Amino acid sequence: MGEVKKKLAVLGSTGSIGQQTLEVVRAFPDLFCVVGLAAGQNITLLAEQIDEFRPGFVHYSPTDSQDVQVNLSAGDYEFLSMEDIACHPEVDIVVIATSGKAGLLPTMAAVKAGKKVALANKESLVMAGEIVMSEAQRAGAQILPVDSEHSAIWQCLQGETQDVSQVILTASGGPFRGYSPAQLAGVTLEQALKHPSWQMGKKVTIDSATLMNKGLEVIEAHWLFNIPFDNIRVLIHPQSIVHAMVEFADGSIKAHLSYPDMRLPIQYALLHPDRKANPQLPRLNWKDIDSLTFEQPDLDTFSCLKLGIEAGKKGGTYPAVLCAADEVAVELFLSQRIKFVDIASLIRRALEQHQAIAHPSLEEIVAADAWAREKVEQLVNGDNL
Amino acid sequence: MGEVKKKLAVLGSTGSIGQQTLEVVRAFPDLFCVVGLAAGQNITLLAEQIDEFRPGFVHYSPTDSQDVQVNLSAGDYEFLSMEDIACHPEVDIVVIATSGKAGLLPTMAAVKAGKKVALANKESLVMAGEIVMSEAQRAGAQILPVDSEHSAIWQCLQGETQDVSQVILTASGGPFRGYSPAQLAGVTLEQALKHPSWQMGKKVTIDSATLMNKGLEVIEAHWLFNIPFDNIRVLIHPQSIVHAMVEFADGSIKAHLSYPDMRLPIQYALLHPDRKANPQLPRLNWKDIDSLTFEQPDLDTFSCLKLGIEAGKKGGTYPAVLCAADEVAVELFLSQRIKFVDIASLIRRALEQHQAIAHPSLEEIVAADAWAREKVEQLVNGDNL
Repeated sequence: MGEVKKKLAVLGSTGSIGQQTLEVVRAFPDLFCVVGLAAGQNITLLAEQIDEFRPGFVHYSPTDSQDVQVNLSAGDYEFLSMEDIACHPEVDIVVIATSGKAGLLPTMAAVKAGKKVALANKESLVMAGEIVMSEAQRAGAQILPVDSEHSAIWQCLQGETQDVSQVILTASGGPFRGYSPAQLAGVTLEQALKHPSWQMGKKVTIDSATLMNKGLEVIEAHWLFNIPFDNIRVLIHPQSIVHAMVEFADGSIKAHLSYPDMRLPIQYALLHPDRKANPQLPRLNWKDIDSLTFEQPDLDTFSCLKLGIEAGKKGGTYPAVLCAADEVAVELFLSQRIKFVDIASLIRRALEQHQAIAHPSLEEIVAADAWAREKVEQLVNGDNL
Repeated sequence: MGEVKKKLAVLGSTGSIGQQTLEVVRAFPDLFCVVGLAAGQNITLLAEQIDEFRPGFVHYSPTDSQDVQVNLSAGDYEFLSMEDIACHPEVDIVVIATSGKAGLLPTMAAVKAGKKVALANKESLVMAGEIVMSEAQRAGAQILPVDSEHSAIWQCLQGETQDVSQVILTASGGPFRGYSPAQLAGVTLEQALKHPSWQMGKKVTIDSATLMNKGLEVIEAHWLFNIPFDNIRVLIHPQSIVHAMVEFADGSIKAHLSYPDMRLPIQYALLHPDRKANPQLPRLNWKDIDSLTFEQPDLDTFSCLKLGIEAGKKGGTYPAVLCAADEVAVELFLSQRIKFVDIASLIRRALEQHQAIAHPSLEEIVAADAWAREKVEQLVNGDNL
């Protein structure tokens, strides 16, 4: 049995996606074993995960207190960098569940090593989609999308051999759907963290409230499926049941539906091309669903979506600046140093002031990222928003 | 060019599906040529079709007046039976677009000859699903579903390798959706012929109003995709945009969406596995669609659906009796000899009085059909409904 198990490394194992990945692993103990775990600050949870899964390779942030490290040292594992875990010969599938920029270098390492890369981290493709995808092709790495929207597109594309004419990403619209600019100006952190349909990490929850999340997903879809930006649409769908739709040459549309539960796209990525019953996954109950609604997004009020699509179309280092500026701005909002609407204006100003490079190297992308972070800090500290 | 064209025989070419099939052929003149045409009573239209498509083989009902036959005799074609056209070596794809029982024998002939059979005729599979499918397997014939619902299921199954856990057929609900039994008792022929979303032939339009159409489709889905009856559900979806949904082992659901237009499933069947742009086919405009709604069907009021599913589950000669009784009852309703609600009660009484045979031969199926037709006439003539 042990021979045929898929060997997983879960980077970002203590975050929302990481924990749900381990739930899927628990549901299929005969199919998967965890050989690598990497976490950031939540060492207590990581220690429990190490106890349970007994990985051979572990990474965690070295800034933690000594006593916690003592606990961790009890485990029988090798301490490696995330990149070294990502490309280790013992690993079959690398789950990139870290949020933000931290996913980029491990993703590159896994891709270069020709791994199967279950990618939940949006920023890798948004910042460096051109490099990641061309490197994946060169190395024979397979990018397995874990986002519910991209998993939905991927599932709809199964068995279809021709180019698609359009993809539609749905967005719940977040807690502020239908708000006017004036209403949006007054929203609180507490309100922004209450997502109506998805349980997610804080960063993604705020990105869902600004619709930046959907802007990042548009860019991701462009790279993952090689679809021109003009053929990618966004529809607001508050029920979060239809995750994406694909329109084919003949006008046929396929849609993927499920209750919002990240374990489903995680499981699909890990089991692909198989599907298996998992009693933990909820099944749609059509007695409870009487209406699926769709609206056009309000790009003027939710300007982060517009900024995202524009940055994607411009390409070069713009998407890296978009990502970095958003990451810092969301942090500032989470620490209550700026207002909700300042997120968009900071990102817009960073993009406006950026001197872009057209086909950047990874180093140039990382430099653009650093520039944008500093720029947003400057904008916040230096002047009134 | 001529060498690579797919050679079609269109049986029932003057009916609704037949005419739409020829529209698809006109849209792709380099891909298809029509080598056979068969029609019933509409000889005027058939003569135009013969003029346009110059088929080598033609069939029509011999009961027509001499002068029309003179016109037709001008064509340079061979007069053959529908069965002979269906199995002719010159034919690649047989489109069975005849309605009612008339489709059964040509379907069997095409299947036995190992043809690709684009099947729009519901009755063939409903009456003789077991025989048709086992014969298709033996002879290597491929049944290509043309019904929008079954085409939708077929499309959702592309690239999926495992058994499905559930299929959901949608029904518009017809013009009497939401009616009480008392309201249904008073409806007129004119009302019943006004379908809210689909343009179809009269028989299918009435079957849609009674929901018998969906009962027949449940049985058809059972045979086409080898799905147990308990895993086939019906949902009322008045917008007729989602045509069917398939639920897989992991709970993922794929749906197929389009405006209701039969040319799309016809084209998909003829081009499969390819898809091609056809400017005549409408594309969903999400600015016009704000809500897709779903309801449970009312099986007590629309008892034809219940009768259909029950007959399918019982199997044997019951589905043949269901079909035949429905065909006669709908004819009686169209000629205004019975009321709308009498359709269901006539079918129910025929089924109740039927002495079924478990695994019938084709002859026994044809005999059950004849018995049911006579029985319904008897019931109408002999006593009060």
